[in-house]
Amino acid sequence: MDFRSAEKLGFASDYMEGAHPEILRRLSETNFLKSPGYGMDDFSETARDKIRQACDAPGAEVYFLTGGTQTNAVVISALLRSYQGVISADTGHINGHEAGAIELGGHKVLTLPNRDGKITAEQLITYQMAWWQDENREHIVMPGMVYISQPTEQGTIYSLEELEALSAVCRASDLPLYLDGARLAYALACPENDVTLQDIARLCDVFYIGGTKCGALFGEAVVIPRFGLISGFFSIIKQHGALLAKGRIAGIQFETLFTDDLYLKLGENAIRAANRIRSVLKEKGYELAYENPTNQIFVVLSKDKAAELSDDVDLGFWENLDAERCIMRIATSWATTDNDVDRLTALL
Amino acid sequence: MDFRSAEKLGFASDYMEGAHPEILRRLSETNFLKSPGYGMDDFSETARDKIRQACDAPGAEVYFLTGGTQTNAVVISALLRSYQGVISADTGHINGHEAGAIELGGHKVLTLPNRDGKITAEQLITYQMAWWQDENREHIVMPGMVYISQPTEQGTIYSLEELEALSAVCRASDLPLYLDGARLAYALACPENDVTLQDIARLCDVFYIGGTKCGALFGEAVVIPRFGLISGFFSIIKQHGALLAKGRIAGIQFETLFTDDLYLKLGENAIRAANRIRSVLKEKGYELAYENPTNQIFVVLSKDKAAELSDDVDLGFWENLDAERCIMRIATSWATTDNDVDRLTALL
Amino acid sequence: MDFRSAEKLGFASDYMEGAHPEILRRLSETNFLKSPGYGMDDFSETARDKIRQACDAPGAEVYFLTGGTQTNAVVISALLRSYQGVISADTGHINGHEAGAIELGGHKVLTLPNRDGKITAEQLITYQMAWWQDENREHIVMPGMVYISQPTEQGTIYSLEELEALSAVCRASDLPLYLDGARLAYALACPENDVTLQDIARLCDVFYIGGTKCGALFGEAVVIPRFGLISGFFSIIKQHGALLAKGRIAGIQFETLFTDDLYLKLGENAIRAANRIRSVLKEKGYELAYENPTNQIFVVLSKDKAAELSDDVDLGFWENLDAERCIMRIATSWATTDNDVDRLTALL
Amino acid sequence: MDFRSAEKLGFASDYMEGAHPEILRRLSETNFLKSPGYGMDDFSETARDKIRQACDAPGAEVYFLTGGTQTNAVVISALLRSYQGVISADTGHINGHEAGAIELGGHKVLTLPNRDGKITAEQLITYQMAWWQDENREHIVMPGMVYISQPTEQGTIYSLEELEALSAVCRASDLPLYLDGARLAYALACPENDVTLQDIARLCDVFYIGGTKCGALFGEAVVIPRFGLISGFFSIIKQHGALLAKGRIAGIQFETLFTDDLYLKLGENAIRAANRIRSVLKEKGYELAYENPTNQIFVVLSKDKAAELSDDVDLGFWENLDAERCIMRIATSWATTDNDVDRLTALL
Repeated sequence: MDFRSAEKLGFASDYMEGAHPEILRRLSETNFLKSPGYGMDDFSETARDKIRQACDAPGAEVYFLTGGTQTNAVVISALLRSYQGVISADTGHINGHEAGAIELGGHKVLTLPNRDGKITAEQLITYQMAWWQDENREHIVMPGMVYISQPTEQGTIYSLEELEALSAVCRASDLPLYLDGARLAYALACPENDVTLQDIARLCDVFYIGGTKCGALFGEAVVIPRFGLISGFFSIIKQHGALLAKGRIAGIQFETLFTDDLYLKLGENAIRAANRIRSVLKEKGYELAYENPTNQIFVVLSKDKAAELSDDVDLGFWENLDAERCIMRIATSWATTDNDVDRLTALL
Repeated sequence: MDFRSAEKLGFASDYMEGAHPEILRRLSETNFLKSPGYGMDDFSETARDKIRQACDAPGAEVYFLTGGTQTNAVVISALLRSYQGVISADTGHINGHEAGAIELGGHKVLTLPNRDGKITAEQLITYQMAWWQDENREHIVMPGMVYISQPTEQGTIYSLEELEALSAVCRASDLPLYLDGARLAYALACPENDVTLQDIARLCDVFYIGGTKCGALFGEAVVIPRFGLISGFFSIIKQHGALLAKGRIAGIQFETLFTDDLYLKLGENAIRAANRIRSVLKEKGYELAYENPTNQIFVVLSKDKAAELSDDVDLGFWENLDAERCIMRIATSWATTDNDVDRLTALL
Repeated sequence: MDFRSAEKLGFASDYMEGAHPEILRRLSETNFLKSPGYGMDDFSETARDKIRQACDAPGAEVYFLTGGTQTNAVVISALLRSYQGVISADTGHINGHEAGAIELGGHKVLTLPNRDGKITAEQLITYQMAWWQDENREHIVMPGMVYISQPTEQGTIYSLEELEALSAVCRASDLPLYLDGARLAYALACPENDVTLQDIARLCDVFYIGGTKCGALFGEAVVIPRFGLISGFFSIIKQHGALLAKGRIAGIQFETLFTDDLYLKLGENAIRAANRIRSVLKEKGYELAYENPTNQIFVVLSKDKAAELSDDVDLGFWENLDAERCIMRIATSWATTDNDVDRLTALL
Repeated sequence: MDFRSAEKLGFASDYMEGAHPEILRRLSETNFLKSPGYGMDDFSETARDKIRQACDAPGAEVYFLTGGTQTNAVVISALLRSYQGVISADTGHINGHEAGAIELGGHKVLTLPNRDGKITAEQLITYQMAWWQDENREHIVMPGMVYISQPTEQGTIYSLEELEALSAVCRASDLPLYLDGARLAYALACPENDVTLQDIARLCDVFYIGGTKCGALFGEAVVIPRFGLISGFFSIIKQHGALLAKGRIAGIQFETLFTDDLYLKLGENAIRAANRIRSVLKEKGYELAYENPTNQIFVVLSKDKAAELSDDVDLGFWENLDAERCIMRIATSWATTDNDVDRLTALL
């Protein structure tokens, strides 16, 4: 086997490696212990407890799923009635990049124009008032919940004030607020961030803590702070083909991520690396497509420059701007080393 | 953390442990290599090649999914038109134990009465003729494919002759034949078995090679021997939330399972252990619910005996027979040791 | 245009003609009055009031849909959670003759073996206990409601005692009981019947009063005796494409059917005719496939006899019994005349 | 019964009355003839022939469904693969006013910004190229067909040149083109229109001729000019609960509408009336929200004026513009009389 890409620098995404070594160590250490399936094992139970504690949500339900699209599809199906849709920024991951998984589940994504990848409490109020005042509203998809992500698709983050406002509107209008935390570690680790896990658990009705992109082999931890909000969620997971037989594999990973603040530390490494790259880019006069403080940098490149770089480093294709220019994504992760950053910045 | 179940014997299922140690070793060894996501990596490509070779199907498409219910739901959705159903034994896993995942995808499971967990070519002919001769057939769900598993839900196996006959009928009537190989390693390893991987690839239109229950952390390899049979399968996988971001994790596992015949060797260990237990059970006069040669033993126990055993060993609950008796499952695996078998047989 | 079938006797089904003439008269009379759409018109409101009165259910919600399969699909979708299935006799219309409409909506039909087309309270208890006692129940589709029809698919009827018992079990176990009344007029009109519309409204959670097969051009009236049981039902109807723009057309028909007991009188005509045919069949030694007192007669015929009859009369094909014999359906209706019956019996 | 709205002028929509009297006459005349169900009757066959002739499409398949949302949902489900979406103007009926029926069927509506309610061939090319050039396209819903309506949601009409261009792009890119003709009679009857039924049959892959809003009690005729394009369409209709048991009722209506050019004549009456109203509105200085030549007039009114008018005439609410103004719809129909127009214009 030829590890073709092994020598090449990799900044295309935050899921190009395996897992944090501590996770592999722990999987090996526990490998021959026997435990029940489907998440009924002690490892998963310990992981749940640690997450409840980190969220300051002692009564929370916690479930481990495999990936982000799956998690979004399962949670949204579980929260909505058949005739309701989910409000999202037009740039929301569920709207653009999940191959229609939400619609496959029978629901319309109701889009609001994003501002820096985010939506606002005011937009929610306006949207709902317009729906309510429309005499034909029973022919129009009823908004049934709100989807946001932290960080957003553009790497920006909601401030605590913004999240408080969204949550207040959602609660006043009986719309569950769901937060997609696929890259939550990288939001939590930003110095600019003032939203804690506890805040999220207090302000959202369902959210997930991303593992796949934050150091795990795979896995997302769905948290439902208020016990009993969704009835039959276990069966819903099973029915969607999202129930791991060896649930322990996810449990052991989250147990590890929530031991000794590993989840936060992973994020900090990525943010440090991203900030170093960001400052070099700015020095060198590159244009950033979106300003954001997290682990993804969206840089505008000429197609020539992008082609030139692609010999030495894998970047992530984001979007064509025009015939000459495109947006490329540079993503750091828990695994990015100082040496990686040095080599990358030398190429820029 | 209290490894409560660690000291207890575990025969409840074949997914109570982690993974074959060689898999963990290989995951660690490759952990820091960078590779593209979504199964586009070299590990996955190598795994595909090894599977194509093992199946003698050089043009086969191979995809890695996470679990059995998910795989069944995705494949069946991909093969059927909206107004078609899937023919299955009434005991088929998709009919009884997948929480309605097939129906969630919009399709009826059309059941045939099983014989030892199996269906026959004759039944397929009869069913289709009855459908065709029914003047109201356009009001009746049209059979659109056939689902079988090897081994079956009762642990029995199709003979080559039986599989040839099913395949011939399916091809004559343009019904894709799909084989669920969640425990395929344990069928392939039986001395009684005369169906090879190559036979399956020759006779079936789609099948999957089970990893989760056969030594992997998780993962199922879907094989479509005839390239291009299903259009858009990648998007279908993504849309169902079944696409692994870190596809390499599945790829590395299947690469390992298909190196040096590990997949077959795993199975042989389980079968040896199961046969030792089977002979002790027969000696001691226990009744088996189903005769089968694979790694699952379905034994009839009085509820008292079941309760007594449960102090020392985890068995799998299968079915209540009546107020006094139940069927319990004893499952061996790649991880079952001689010592485990000795301890179990001593308790019987 | 050649009215090929005009001269031929027609007993194939109860929907071979247009509508009761009083309905056409009323449609003409009101044709140029203007009214709002979507069932918000005064005609529909009057029809609802008359139905509420006939059912002795002053708080009932009443909706008008177009046909039986549509009504079953919409109601069942509205009553079930995504992970639940609907219990039905194996012979239930939703299981066999609706082309998979229930599964298209995502739900499994959980079948119980029928007895004369019916299911019993005891079967419901046993089924639920088995589900509850199964340790794997979360992997098995959860029963979420019960479907019956009056008359049944075999033309038999539930007695009041049987319906009371079913209802009691359903309420004790929080399973909505839904009654499909596609041919309800013909059950209500039987001398053998002791179940009134008021009983149905008292004992069922949702039911529909069939129009299409009972004298209307089309239309089924869904009754939800307990106001508010289903939230968003109007939107659910719309979303399923089942909302009539000119709702008045259905409203006027049901207003007519529930004026001066027309619905009951229609039924009586059909039952008188059916009983005359039944007694001739018995006299002449024909075998009936199912004994029943309603408007459908299921008679066993040699295929030769069936072919011979088909020159002069249209009967409904029901089922092939074997190479020589089939079951044919003779259906009477509100439109069957004495002369029709005379001509038919002369041919037998 | 109080015909509250009987005396009031009604211009809210084109489905406020019953049906063209010739349809009622014909339903009465044929009422007692017996015919097979499910559209297999001679009336429906004659109607199909007349439609084939009017479309100059001798090999076309024709099916009769009940209403517009239903027809759109069934056709779109039948045309798309599970992972594809339907391209539509953002103002398209399927996007805004069908309560999520398309998404319930599992498909995303892919919106293009409308220009006068329409989309252009250029937009289709640009959209597809962007999709194709996006390296993440397998994560993005694949465009699988194009939806347009004639007239559009704003009452505008596609010119033959525009339709030819759309059709050419669709055929070049293997995207079926589907035309929603809910109000087709009113487009065909405009002097400004240069698109004939034959053009539509030549340029579209599927379309429907609207009955509900064009003089029928209910009913839409789906035309598939190229025989065999959709396999299993009858079963798809049945499975969606859209199959009329008494198919003849729809058949008789379309047979009537396509006898002696009734369908065209109906439209002409509506257009004459609309044009009279339009010229009065312009004279009196009212602002029209959209310029169009068909039977719907979208007029901007102050909320005071709208409230004042509502005492004497029912108009259709369309949209709130701001706190003071709204858009109201004035719809004429086959049933609008000169006297109605006189009374309305006197109120303006």
